[in-house]
Amino acid sequence: MRRRYLIWLNWPERPFRLNASDLKLFKGLVGGGEVHVARSERAFLRALPEATHAICWEFSREWFSRAANLRVLATPGAGRELLPTDGELPGGVRKFHGEFHGAIMSETAIAYMLAWCRGLYQAYEWQKSGAAADLWRRVDLGECCYTLAGTRAVILGYGRIGHALGAKLEALGVAVKGIRRRNAGELPDAVANADWLICVLPSDTGTDGIVGAKLLRRMKRSAVLINIGRGNAVDESALASALKRRRIAAAFLDVFGKEPLTAASPLAHDLPGLFRFPHASAFSPDYLARFFHELAARGALD
Amino acid sequence: MRRRYLIWLNWPERPFRLNASDLKLFKGLVGGGEVHVARSERAFLRALPEATHAICWEFSREWFSRAANLRVLATPGAGRELLPTDGELPGGVRKFHGEFHGAIMSETAIAYMLAWCRGLYQAYEWQKSGAAADLWRRVDLGECCYTLAGTRAVILGYGRIGHALGAKLEALGVAVKGIRRRNAGELPDAVANADWLICVLPSDTGTDGIVGAKLLRRMKRSAVLINIGRGNAVDESALASALKRRRIAAAFLDVFGKEPLTAASPLAHDLPGLFRFPHASAFSPDYLARFFHELAARGALD
Repeated sequence: MRRRYLIWLNWPERPFRLNASDLKLFKGLVGGGEVHVARSERAFLRALPEATHAICWEFSREWFSRAANLRVLATPGAGRELLPTDGELPGGVRKFHGEFHGAIMSETAIAYMLAWCRGLYQAYEWQKSGAAADLWRRVDLGECCYTLAGTRAVILGYGRIGHALGAKLEALGVAVKGIRRRNAGELPDAVANADWLICVLPSDTGTDGIVGAKLLRRMKRSAVLINIGRGNAVDESALASALKRRRIAAAFLDVFGKEPLTAASPLAHDLPGLFRFPHASAFSPDYLARFFHELAARGALD
Repeated sequence: MRRRYLIWLNWPERPFRLNASDLKLFKGLVGGGEVHVARSERAFLRALPEATHAICWEFSREWFSRAANLRVLATPGAGRELLPTDGELPGGVRKFHGEFHGAIMSETAIAYMLAWCRGLYQAYEWQKSGAAADLWRRVDLGECCYTLAGTRAVILGYGRIGHALGAKLEALGVAVKGIRRRNAGELPDAVANADWLICVLPSDTGTDGIVGAKLLRRMKRSAVLINIGRGNAVDESALASALKRRRIAAAFLDVFGKEPLTAASPLAHDLPGLFRFPHASAFSPDYLARFFHELAARGALD
């Protein structure tokens, strides 16, 4: 059967939107197959009956009824919630999630860690103050800098992304302990000795609020929490309180219980050591290029 | 002859000041030798005649006349200017400079690079603004994030520190071109293709202003300059002008022509893409511990 590729990738963020060079790359990868680009849900659903391969951000189960020729359903996202998860897919449709995120997200986590331990935020505060007395606070900066090498990190959620991060951290001299969700019982002891608790859990693991008041109390006062997984893993009120009381030194949060973040969140205010990001840890101009190369390598475009 | 170690290390920055645990480590490393700690230049000079090993930040040539028993002169600093450089040292005194800085400084350079390409400063600006419209600027952050992996760095000054940085960058997927000062003629072509120009030159190499208007014009508009070597390598007026006109994207400067930095410097003002640090790239709480271990390993304490 002739391959008919249907691509609908136009989330508003530039890395998540098909551009001309992504499309050119895709056409090169699939050789002779027909490639159709949809710009809206309506256009996507109209073209779906003909498609053998659908590549889109999200897909609803009821759409299968119009997808008689579908053999492959693929999303660039790692989150299981993007594609139907309840039960079997109809008629042998193969499902693919992007698996390339670890390389990008691990750079983001390491950026947080190094910015913190090399004093970048502190120096920037002094630079921005504009005061003459802040022009050369060398002695003060000497109080807060340390090296990433020699520190200990606990990575909570030790699948593909966790492993990618762990390998890079080990190359940088960090002692890494990876904890899979099924071994969450090891967490309290592990975090007691950790300089970093890095959460990369997906949303669908029954781990709501696993980083809560109790676990935060086990952490060292000098320790830093990083969440680049999903927001549901963190009890946000407990974290806000821990930061306010300086129970931990800092939190770098890329994800939140409710996104987009609103002023109603306990983390929407300025708190000591709080650094917020708008779910951006995987941003990269070559995001879709990486995904397409990966699909080809995994045989998803055959 | 009995070994008499004289230590005078009390610069104001905490990493550069001998503390109790550094001293304990040192005594352990030298076994039975006598260890004397000086807290001032006067105390140092008073004890110098007896010393076989002097470990200090700076040493003046005229002090050799009072150092009849001296066999080893060592400074933690990498800068040649710290110890007498003109001519021979008297009577076979062996001179040691710290060689451990690369591991720490390369973390600092990578911190700058990752903070820049993962959008950390941009996100922080929006967080600090406190405006509701800045609470979730995901689309905007998507415009400025890219990965460190896949970029190209030129390292100017390719000795011990440059190599340490180069190795770490290569492990992170960066294409590295190291240029030694004697091959500075390769610079204009090299920087034309580089995403990063990282200067780690020492001060005594006749490279004053090597990063000047001409070289800055050769750089890509998206490129970033980093200087963690010595300030004299950069023509500061030319750099200020290049930043003002956005000829390059950013400059991370840890060192300056005149330190401490004063308001008279063309780089003391806020300029687009300027990030200043107070000569802090090697700060680490274990700075002296690293140095002492290294001295022992190099046989300097025998």
